Amino acid sequence: MNNFQGNPAFVAYAVACLVLCANLIFLWAFSGATRGKTRTAINAEDAARFGGTLVEVDPPEVARVLRAHANAQASIYPFLFLGLVFVLLGGGAGFAETIFGIFTVARLAHSYVYLKGRQPWRSIFFIIGGLATIALMLDIIWLLVRT
Amino acid sequence: MNNFQGNPAFVAYAVACLVLCANLIFLWAFSGATRGKTRTAINAEDAARFGGTLVEVDPPEVARVLRAHANAQASIYPFLFLGLVFVLLGGGAGFAETIFGIFTVARLAHSYVYLKGRQPWRSIFFIIGGLATIALMLDIIWLLVRT
Amino acid sequence: MNNFQGNPAFVAYAVACLVLCANLIFLWAFSGATRGKTRTAINAEDAARFGGTLVEVDPPEVARVLRAHANAQASIYPFLFLGLVFVLLGGGAGFAETIFGIFTVARLAHSYVYLKGRQPWRSIFFIIGGLATIALMLDIIWLLVRT
Repeated sequence: MNNFQGNPAFVAYAVACLVLCANLIFLWAFSGATRGKTRTAINAEDAARFGGTLVEVDPPEVARVLRAHANAQASIYPFLFLGLVFVLLGGGAGFAETIFGIFTVARLAHSYVYLKGRQPWRSIFFIIGGLATIALMLDIIWLLVRT
Repeated sequence: MNNFQGNPAFVAYAVACLVLCANLIFLWAFSGATRGKTRTAINAEDAARFGGTLVEVDPPEVARVLRAHANAQASIYPFLFLGLVFVLLGGGAGFAETIFGIFTVARLAHSYVYLKGRQPWRSIFFIIGGLATIALMLDIIWLLVRT
Repeated sequence: MNNFQGNPAFVAYAVACLVLCANLIFLWAFSGATRGKTRTAINAEDAARFGGTLVEVDPPEVARVLRAHANAQASIYPFLFLGLVFVLLGGGAGFAETIFGIFTVARLAHSYVYLKGRQPWRSIFFIIGGLATIALMLDIIWLLVRT
């Protein structure tokens, strides 16, 4: 009754959601930690309270982490909405485990190589995540038209 | 059991979610394609690997696509959370189809006119999307207090 | 069937989702209103249609509201995904009400003190929201391994 604990596709979703949200939260916290290491502050009250130089533009190190975070947000949130729709439409556990697994690993790798500045790996992992998202969308369409 | 395939309000949600996520993903990919066309790179490793001039600030064309994407994110994600809450609270199919349909069309139109730089249409479509969101929130409150 | 209206953990989620989405939408709309008050426009078509000085960089007042919004997005969306996973896994109503309540109040307070520029309160409310998110993630892991 109203409980998806025994639904293996939902369990796959829950695990992917946990890891992907941890990825997002880490990047956001890391942008703050990186800002601290550059001894800069973007808000006057932060410079006054915690010290550091007040700046109007993020230092390059901080801007990189924020770009990695922006890319993660733009990729992960749509996937998490679509993944939930897939599971609630009764999508299969095997497909869910495969696609959620590929997407999650690709996004973790994308964040890592973005922070490290490694190309062409960043593009490759972004594209793998994108292809997994497209596969998920096609399967949702299939589930909808099959009805 | 645990399957919303036969719930018409959820099917409306699934279709809106598909289209709105496609809208978001298109804008994000298009910002990258636009950046490529300007022959600029914001990451040193991209300039080194793929060529282009390394810049610290996005060219105006890229900044416009990113603003359209930011507006889409700020509007669509809350709506998708609220829409799902509405459906899971047992909200009616007629209301779901109407509100999800209006919001989805308004947001597609908003993205289009943002990229084209057309006012007052951009403001009009933004407001229509906002009113649909407020209507959805009011109906959720109604579903909650009715309990 | 397929209706969570009688599930108190889901009702807590629905209320938190309503308030947190209202928070996000308010900040986004407020960034536009603040921009209007500075008599600046970031799009050429806005300056042409509504007047104001065309600028390439947001005025400091607008940039502050947008940073508050960015922080809200980065914190709230992951929490809303995780909160829904928690409820769908059959998580308890008492835990849901406590954690959703603490997070929601902390985020409202965070937005308020960000707009007012008050430290160390902003950091304190950000950390409270972060700890609530970590508690939620740990309880989801507990629900998953207990299976």
